[in-house]
Amino acid sequence: MASNGNGSLANDASTRGKPIKCKAAVAWCPGEPLAMEEVEVAPPGRLEVRVKLLFTSICHTDLSFLKGENELQRKFPRILGHEAAGVVESVGEGVEDLAAGDHVVPIFNGECGACAYCESGKTNLCGTYRVDPFKSTMASDGGTRFSVVDGSGERRPVYHFLNTSTFAEYTVLDTACAVKVHPKAPLDKMCLLSCGISTEMGVTDFIDSKACGKPVHEAIREMTDGGVDYSFECTGINDVLREAFLSTHDGWGLTVVLGIHATPKMMPLHPMELFDGRRITGCVFGDFKGKSQLPDIVDKCMNGELNLNFDGFITHKMPFSDINKAFQLLEEGKSLRCVLHF
Amino acid sequence: MASNGNGSLANDASTRGKPIKCKAAVAWCPGEPLAMEEVEVAPPGRLEVRVKLLFTSICHTDLSFLKGENELQRKFPRILGHEAAGVVESVGEGVEDLAAGDHVVPIFNGECGACAYCESGKTNLCGTYRVDPFKSTMASDGGTRFSVVDGSGERRPVYHFLNTSTFAEYTVLDTACAVKVHPKAPLDKMCLLSCGISTEMGVTDFIDSKACGKPVHEAIREMTDGGVDYSFECTGINDVLREAFLSTHDGWGLTVVLGIHATPKMMPLHPMELFDGRRITGCVFGDFKGKSQLPDIVDKCMNGELNLNFDGFITHKMPFSDINKAFQLLEEGKSLRCVLHF
Repeated sequence: MASNGNGSLANDASTRGKPIKCKAAVAWCPGEPLAMEEVEVAPPGRLEVRVKLLFTSICHTDLSFLKGENELQRKFPRILGHEAAGVVESVGEGVEDLAAGDHVVPIFNGECGACAYCESGKTNLCGTYRVDPFKSTMASDGGTRFSVVDGSGERRPVYHFLNTSTFAEYTVLDTACAVKVHPKAPLDKMCLLSCGISTEMGVTDFIDSKACGKPVHEAIREMTDGGVDYSFECTGINDVLREAFLSTHDGWGLTVVLGIHATPKMMPLHPMELFDGRRITGCVFGDFKGKSQLPDIVDKCMNGELNLNFDGFITHKMPFSDINKAFQLLEEGKSLRCVLHF
Repeated sequence: MASNGNGSLANDASTRGKPIKCKAAVAWCPGEPLAMEEVEVAPPGRLEVRVKLLFTSICHTDLSFLKGENELQRKFPRILGHEAAGVVESVGEGVEDLAAGDHVVPIFNGECGACAYCESGKTNLCGTYRVDPFKSTMASDGGTRFSVVDGSGERRPVYHFLNTSTFAEYTVLDTACAVKVHPKAPLDKMCLLSCGISTEMGVTDFIDSKACGKPVHEAIREMTDGGVDYSFECTGINDVLREAFLSTHDGWGLTVVLGIHATPKMMPLHPMELFDGRRITGCVFGDFKGKSQLPDIVDKCMNGELNLNFDGFITHKMPFSDINKAFQLLEEGKSLRCVLHF
């Protein structure tokens, strides 16, 4: 955490209250490469902030939505992207916890801090701003803050994605979805806290399912004296979920579902299999509350209390303009995380 | 807990080491009423005890096995029954924690006390004596301790059931499946600790799914400001399991599966539904360790620290000879628990 990749982040008040024209990678339809377009980004509304993004990275969830794998969640044109870091350009009416110049990390699983869910210690799912793959507009007025001129010369709205839409030079976020981080935290790494870092880091062994000659869960049980204590399913593939479940130790094993599963397949488990003491749970954003708890994690990374191995995660770095190349590397399994700089 | 229904429990050493002929209700084939037969009960083997049963009650699981609902678990002739209380008649080789005259409650989910599972605080599933619906013989030698003369005059083995087989005047249990209780505890009530008491007691409201005009989970969410914190599914019906899951509050609801579900239907949930923060788990024997923890529960019932409302559970009392009548009441939904006395 020695370097600080933030560069010059001087704030320019001249854009406040006005639309900003900037570059964004727009998804026009499922399965097509992103198109680098000039979009207009409206000023932030009530309890919203407009953020100048400095870094963004790509996650499999972006790829899955770009492909339109779940028909019900298709909404185009759209600006994808949910892992990023940047600087607040301006704030909307009623925003008290953020100000222009603050360094922020967008979070797809927001925290209003005031609802019954946010006040409960038992969940990190906010009543209003929790992750919602069906949501494509802003919560306050149901509108979008992006617009673009299409092929026929008409200006049309561009939909939002997962409360974030970070494949753009500027985005508008609900303040519930923007976390202020230490001003010296290196934003080129912090962008991974938006999502990627919450999944499994720390693989020690690798099993090739095609070469191991038996079901993977049998191989894992043999290697671990009956099964692992925890398994994390990150692929969204039902057969893998079943293997992950069976790979845990009976009596106490816990499978954590992280991957996005396409509808309408049901869970590949029989209810009676729960009687072997194996449990299964979903997990959103590492089960912690983003606004309340992420800043402390950043501080701990900076003072060395926590070593999240960002560098082990980042396999590629490119300019934002190469975003389609970065998508291709991800799809071919050649990159883990590619960080794009604006 | 004032009355003690135990009557005279004087011990008679004259049967020790010899087979005992006694009455048992034998299930000869799926779906037929039980037949009251004279069976022979062998002396207990190594780490086994022979128990004179005084009370037994009937649970839906007995009914489900009598009907042969799960083809793979059919095994006849068989002595069903798993809720009971009685007195140790004699003990086999190596038994140190029980002696003739001890008052015991059989448990279908045993505890050897020495395996890695029993030594773990994370599970109550013993490596050897955990509940196993496919098991029909004794663990020590794979044999049965019951035999009966069939219609052709031949003596044949009668299979065991859920480590217990309590629909008989005498049964043989692994010592891991027999819990010694306070000698003054009323055995006509204690028999419910074998199983029934571990399910939901405390219904305050009743919803008629046919009359409520909407899915039950919607009605429950309306009544409880978003859903209950915990739901217990006791029927083994997949549609009910789904309703139970959806009846819990998003963010923190927990559904506990207690009912026996017939194969091969998969869990009626989509993996993504776990992302709403609802969890689901199986639960065997109230998730506590029978041998270690049940005696303390009995003591607490006796000194008034715990009020388990046995009387609210017991709707009928009959002689053991009326067992088929008791099954009929259960099937017709007219009884909750019928306690049979020998």
